[in-house]
Amino acid sequence: MARIVIALGGNALQANPKDISAEAQLVTAHETSKAIVDLIEEGHEVIVAHGNGPQVGQIVSTYEASASLNEKNPVMPFPECGAMSQGYIGYHLQQAIREEMKKRGLNKEIATVITQVVVDEKDEGFKNPTKPVGSFFTEEQAKKLMQEKGYVMKEDANRGWRRVVPSPLPVAVVEEKIINTLVDAGHVVITVGGGGIPVIDRGNGKLQGVAAVIDKDFASEKIAEILNADKLIILTAVEKVSINYGKENQQDLSKMTISEAEKYIEEGHFASGSMLPKVKAAMMFVNSKEGRESIITSLEKAREAIEGSNGTRIIK
Amino acid sequence: MARIVIALGGNALQANPKDISAEAQLVTAHETSKAIVDLIEEGHEVIVAHGNGPQVGQIVSTYEASASLNEKNPVMPFPECGAMSQGYIGYHLQQAIREEMKKRGLNKEIATVITQVVVDEKDEGFKNPTKPVGSFFTEEQAKKLMQEKGYVMKEDANRGWRRVVPSPLPVAVVEEKIINTLVDAGHVVITVGGGGIPVIDRGNGKLQGVAAVIDKDFASEKIAEILNADKLIILTAVEKVSINYGKENQQDLSKMTISEAEKYIEEGHFASGSMLPKVKAAMMFVNSKEGRESIITSLEKAREAIEGSNGTRIIK
Repeated sequence: MARIVIALGGNALQANPKDISAEAQLVTAHETSKAIVDLIEEGHEVIVAHGNGPQVGQIVSTYEASASLNEKNPVMPFPECGAMSQGYIGYHLQQAIREEMKKRGLNKEIATVITQVVVDEKDEGFKNPTKPVGSFFTEEQAKKLMQEKGYVMKEDANRGWRRVVPSPLPVAVVEEKIINTLVDAGHVVITVGGGGIPVIDRGNGKLQGVAAVIDKDFASEKIAEILNADKLIILTAVEKVSINYGKENQQDLSKMTISEAEKYIEEGHFASGSMLPKVKAAMMFVNSKEGRESIITSLEKAREAIEGSNGTRIIK
Repeated sequence: MARIVIALGGNALQANPKDISAEAQLVTAHETSKAIVDLIEEGHEVIVAHGNGPQVGQIVSTYEASASLNEKNPVMPFPECGAMSQGYIGYHLQQAIREEMKKRGLNKEIATVITQVVVDEKDEGFKNPTKPVGSFFTEEQAKKLMQEKGYVMKEDANRGWRRVVPSPLPVAVVEEKIINTLVDAGHVVITVGGGGIPVIDRGNGKLQGVAAVIDKDFASEKIAEILNADKLIILTAVEKVSINYGKENQQDLSKMTISEAEKYIEEGHFASGSMLPKVKAAMMFVNSKEGRESIITSLEKAREAIEGSNGTRIIK
């Protein structure tokens, strides 16, 4: 029996990237729940973390579209959009995982905890916002938004202007004791959705939401450390991490030591917006304490990966 | 020291009904948190429930506006809109209450639990939907929505057509054990936001979200029973319940027995969409077990009401 933080990637929430509807996502949540409950059924303590890229993007775009009709229509600030995405993705996951547990006769409870994650305003990410969110605008609209709302907007080759927000690293999870209480009591917890709602600690208890996106793999790593988890499983679209990915000499890895990973990173094997943050989060967890292990694999192979017959294990 | 469920009304979330912006609501959440933390500071165990009428209405209207621009834009189903409102209202409340606790040196944690509430599909409410949600439409648009989406829509005197959803009674709180674990551990919990996300129990673990609005006072009463609370405090815009409200012979009540309340209801003293459900929820809680007490008062007078010097106590 292990304590496992499982980080769900985009395809575990939205099987068909073209269908962003809630109805389709609920169907996907039911598929995803099977692989998660496989682990619960084997006796593991499971904490579920997840991304929210397409979902929060859709929420932001919906508010932007509404405001374009009538500028008196409210625009929801970005941290609140993140909280909304945690609410609705969490609702889908908790409903689907609960059903799968009940079907298998597992007498366990599950809940979504709305989770704030502290970031450092001195984080390098704030100096150079890179994460695009929401709809495309014309140059004229973009300049108005930059002036009126203080947005940072960048031109995206021929598609128009788009807001960009920083992607700072997670420093602390505000609701850590809440999550710990629930996990210790044997409940399944859904947390740090979308990497968490980013907040800056202003001191004296004051937290301030900021427009930023915390990488969900780093947030998952952080909560895995806090909860003293044994394993961090990062789910993605492929079964294993590869070197020379997509080339003739592609090689899938069953395991990777920290020093091998460092070498592969230096050699540029992992794409920066994609496999690189996963490998880095996996390494960070392994380095955080003796005996901790990270696994990168696909949703479908999660059980095999835990048993050791699939996926890529990242070890000391 | 008592275990108290406190049901926040609309004005505790949104001080100025004309300003629906998230920024204004966060300011109101900070004001509201003071009265709540007064109770926590006195040593009471506090569970916070809240409404979501204007907020979920705004979310629905925003999606409707976006879909009116382009019918390919997704429309969020009503239960998911409720989950989104729980996420963002909960985020505001947990942030504001946490800050107020830290300022006063209270070493307690707080979290929002995304909460599903089971309703009975045979509930009378489903036969006659009455709760209006979202924007107004023309007759033509309304007929299209009724046909394509199966909405029930009603004409609202001269303002146009609007969707109506049922308002069934709460039967069970799906996440009750989660909430109980957190309350028993001494944490403050925000739950049954907007009366909870309404779901129908299809058996074998299957829950199905439905378009409905559960009255937040009845949902608060239900969770108060489940948690074996001592007191249910229903906050509203007035300090005390009155008979002959708004008339020359208006009489404010410091206490009201169950039989007095029954008489006043029969005499028509309480408005059906407003004070009546509050009085009924208060009575239900008092009747549920010996020694339980309900209080109806304003946010500002909550502490005085607990101490017995204000508000209306509903007792056996």
